Amino acid sequence: MVCAVEIYEKPKLNNPVLIEGLPGIGFVANIATLHLINELKTRRFAEIHSSAFQDLTITTETGGTRSPLNELYYHKSRNGGRDLIIWYGNTQALTTFGQYELCGRVLTIAEELGSKFLITIGGFRQEAINGTPNVYCASTDAETMSRVTAFGTKIMVGQIFGIAGLMVGLGKLRGFKGFSLLVDTLGTQPDANGARLILPILNKYLNLNVELSRLDVAAEEIKKILESFGLIRGAAEEKKKEEQQLRWFV
Amino acid sequence: MVCAVEIYEKPKLNNPVLIEGLPGIGFVANIATLHLINELKTRRFAEIHSSAFQDLTITTETGGTRSPLNELYYHKSRNGGRDLIIWYGNTQALTTFGQYELCGRVLTIAEELGSKFLITIGGFRQEAINGTPNVYCASTDAETMSRVTAFGTKIMVGQIFGIAGLMVGLGKLRGFKGFSLLVDTLGTQPDANGARLILPILNKYLNLNVELSRLDVAAEEIKKILESFGLIRGAAEEKKKEEQQLRWFV
Amino acid sequence: MVCAVEIYEKPKLNNPVLIEGLPGIGFVANIATLHLINELKTRRFAEIHSSAFQDLTITTETGGTRSPLNELYYHKSRNGGRDLIIWYGNTQALTTFGQYELCGRVLTIAEELGSKFLITIGGFRQEAINGTPNVYCASTDAETMSRVTAFGTKIMVGQIFGIAGLMVGLGKLRGFKGFSLLVDTLGTQPDANGARLILPILNKYLNLNVELSRLDVAAEEIKKILESFGLIRGAAEEKKKEEQQLRWFV
Amino acid sequence: MVCAVEIYEKPKLNNPVLIEGLPGIGFVANIATLHLINELKTRRFAEIHSSAFQDLTITTETGGTRSPLNELYYHKSRNGGRDLIIWYGNTQALTTFGQYELCGRVLTIAEELGSKFLITIGGFRQEAINGTPNVYCASTDAETMSRVTAFGTKIMVGQIFGIAGLMVGLGKLRGFKGFSLLVDTLGTQPDANGARLILPILNKYLNLNVELSRLDVAAEEIKKILESFGLIRGAAEEKKKEEQQLRWFV
Repeated sequence: MVCAVEIYEKPKLNNPVLIEGLPGIGFVANIATLHLINELKTRRFAEIHSSAFQDLTITTETGGTRSPLNELYYHKSRNGGRDLIIWYGNTQALTTFGQYELCGRVLTIAEELGSKFLITIGGFRQEAINGTPNVYCASTDAETMSRVTAFGTKIMVGQIFGIAGLMVGLGKLRGFKGFSLLVDTLGTQPDANGARLILPILNKYLNLNVELSRLDVAAEEIKKILESFGLIRGAAEEKKKEEQQLRWFV
Repeated sequence: MVCAVEIYEKPKLNNPVLIEGLPGIGFVANIATLHLINELKTRRFAEIHSSAFQDLTITTETGGTRSPLNELYYHKSRNGGRDLIIWYGNTQALTTFGQYELCGRVLTIAEELGSKFLITIGGFRQEAINGTPNVYCASTDAETMSRVTAFGTKIMVGQIFGIAGLMVGLGKLRGFKGFSLLVDTLGTQPDANGARLILPILNKYLNLNVELSRLDVAAEEIKKILESFGLIRGAAEEKKKEEQQLRWFV
Repeated sequence: MVCAVEIYEKPKLNNPVLIEGLPGIGFVANIATLHLINELKTRRFAEIHSSAFQDLTITTETGGTRSPLNELYYHKSRNGGRDLIIWYGNTQALTTFGQYELCGRVLTIAEELGSKFLITIGGFRQEAINGTPNVYCASTDAETMSRVTAFGTKIMVGQIFGIAGLMVGLGKLRGFKGFSLLVDTLGTQPDANGARLILPILNKYLNLNVELSRLDVAAEEIKKILESFGLIRGAAEEKKKEEQQLRWFV
Repeated sequence: MVCAVEIYEKPKLNNPVLIEGLPGIGFVANIATLHLINELKTRRFAEIHSSAFQDLTITTETGGTRSPLNELYYHKSRNGGRDLIIWYGNTQALTTFGQYELCGRVLTIAEELGSKFLITIGGFRQEAINGTPNVYCASTDAETMSRVTAFGTKIMVGQIFGIAGLMVGLGKLRGFKGFSLLVDTLGTQPDANGARLILPILNKYLNLNVELSRLDVAAEEIKKILESFGLIRGAAEEKKKEEQQLRWFV
């Protein structure tokens, strides 16, 4: 199957901006987009499964199950601003092939809904952070770049790994403009503080009025999901490796 | 080829339940389903090969050969209960891509035979087990959950790896209801005791009358298969790795 | 591409036996089949390339190049015996997916030429060999087994890795009969002595009259090929790993 | 997608020679072909993306982005010589499957433009280099070989890894003639000196008059690209591995 996309609804959107929020360094994108979904009037319109996601299921507190999954939400602006497509999920793909496939599918869906602009979010891993973390920007074009640096972001110098980087590159090739916002983070824990620095820039750039007071709710939810996936309890990893060896043998 | 399915017979089944029993932690699922196949009147109706299975053959005591293989059996209830589709085999797929493909194929076959309910079985690895091992349950829905916990199972909290987890997740996405039963196990040896705790719950849930007195026969058979695959004799592993290096080089 | 097969000629063959001789443990199969190609009147009728072969080329002494390659030869019997299809090459596939694909293609070609019987050859790695190495047999069926053990082979107990094992398993699934011959070997060097023990059994089973006096010619040729692939000079391996890292980065 | 090729223009070329210049050992090919692109009148006519390239984007000094990419340029000779197709890029594919796919696509494009001759360039890694580095040649055929050794190259003995080797092998299978030029290099840094020894041979073989005085410009540019990809700063690698583990988990 590679990528299986289920689209529940084809919304009519006004020049929408695609915002990527999959788990990555410091889970900044994940927290920021979950907060947008919580605070804005949004509606889930598509879900994506990929055979490049991990082969497991996670249990919830009540014994229910949760699969590796990506979701697309839309938000219709009420103040005449641009509509949003929010790409949220609990995983990226495990292989580069899967990553390209996933990005290609999402770009196609966004194009069909009239989008030609995308924003990706990420953490920029640092050994230590002294003072306020910096926010950096990389962009598909100089004009967009100057608009974003006007909000106080620095110029990103380095590699942007995974979906956050790939989307800017592949988007550009398909005629999208856009930018990537990255924030200094230790990257070891879900970094609500990082998201707190990213969201005001989204507010300004997109004319949103998202409050930050309930940001910790999103951060807590992400933390819980991570724990259920065994990410924070490192021990689970070791077990998993053993299990994969079992599978290999028989 | 990825997945090659050969179907010998398309049985007419009455609202059948799909039971997954591939090798996994403690080989609990493998032992339990082999015991069902031994004790119930069952018939093999399909076999599945995948290029995501290992590339070897195993010899039997008489010099015959046995390939990595999955099989589907059916059982027609005689007491008006639900029929069964039993998924048995000597391997899971080696790659996540192969795992998704395999699950997808089996779900399609089960759907075509009228199944909308599935049960998966697994071990829940523990460092040590004091007293009677616990049996846990995770489910696609609350109603099923409460029916299974009524038989004394606890709520599963954690990750369910491999096919046992994937099937509950992918099944749910395709409209199946069902549950996963997991039992505390050390996981280092084929765990007949774990299977002995799982089977009474299947008996109750499915109105089966499967006796457990000959369970050791199934456990011994699984143990023999594992030995022939080199799983229990760890040394074979090292050799295998060397051989793979050879293949890589020339 | 995965597998690209080029067939130069479709020979008319009399009930041919497919003999597999790719590089494996001790390179016994490789030496034995090259000797058959050298001694019998054979003709190359097909070549196979796979994107699961390694991505390199090897230079010959004169600066020419040699690619990872599989070849098929045929031999027409002159004494009314069965014709042969000999599968020779300088590599197996690097992935299990590639291995299944390769076997599937060769089985299809052999079927189209009327073959329903196959022989694979391999080494059975031992830490030490005291006295004459044993030759073992595994077979698709009891009748074939008893015919081969009549020539003094023991019953193989264990795993048969790679193409030699896979072909017996996949062949059986497609209605081929056949057997695998394995000989004790240290496996660290091209083992002409192993081939010397395998070939008399092929002579008897197939009514061939292949002399063994020039076997060292084939063993030397295989050794040269291995050296050019860097197999025997272990140092090349380390370099290769570095190079792969380079490729990964940029 | 695997390989996505975008062709801007289909030039009419006179018996063109395909020159491969992707990053490899010592980045000799990369520097040499970038210098050709800088010095000759060339035009970019195609770009190639592959899902076997790495999943990241690189930022430029101004915050712009650069994706893993291959490009094809053409050069029309003004002195009645043969035209050129130059294959340049910042990456090879990460998997052997991707490498075969990439080579196959470029060979097809080159064939369609009338090319039947190719040249690949590489470094031949040495622990230490005393005196002038040697230049080696491997060729598809003896006639080409003798033409190139006439320019003072030695006969290559060994393996040619990656695209440089694969193209000579796969090209030969598709009826291309050609050769690979390799130069002794430590391989740890972009080796302008290696390129300085390769280019005079291309000048002679192809009747080009490319000056070498500005070669350091190309070497510096390659070095900058490598630094942006984190190749020279080894620390980035470690981070990347951590990030990949993150992706694996959630």
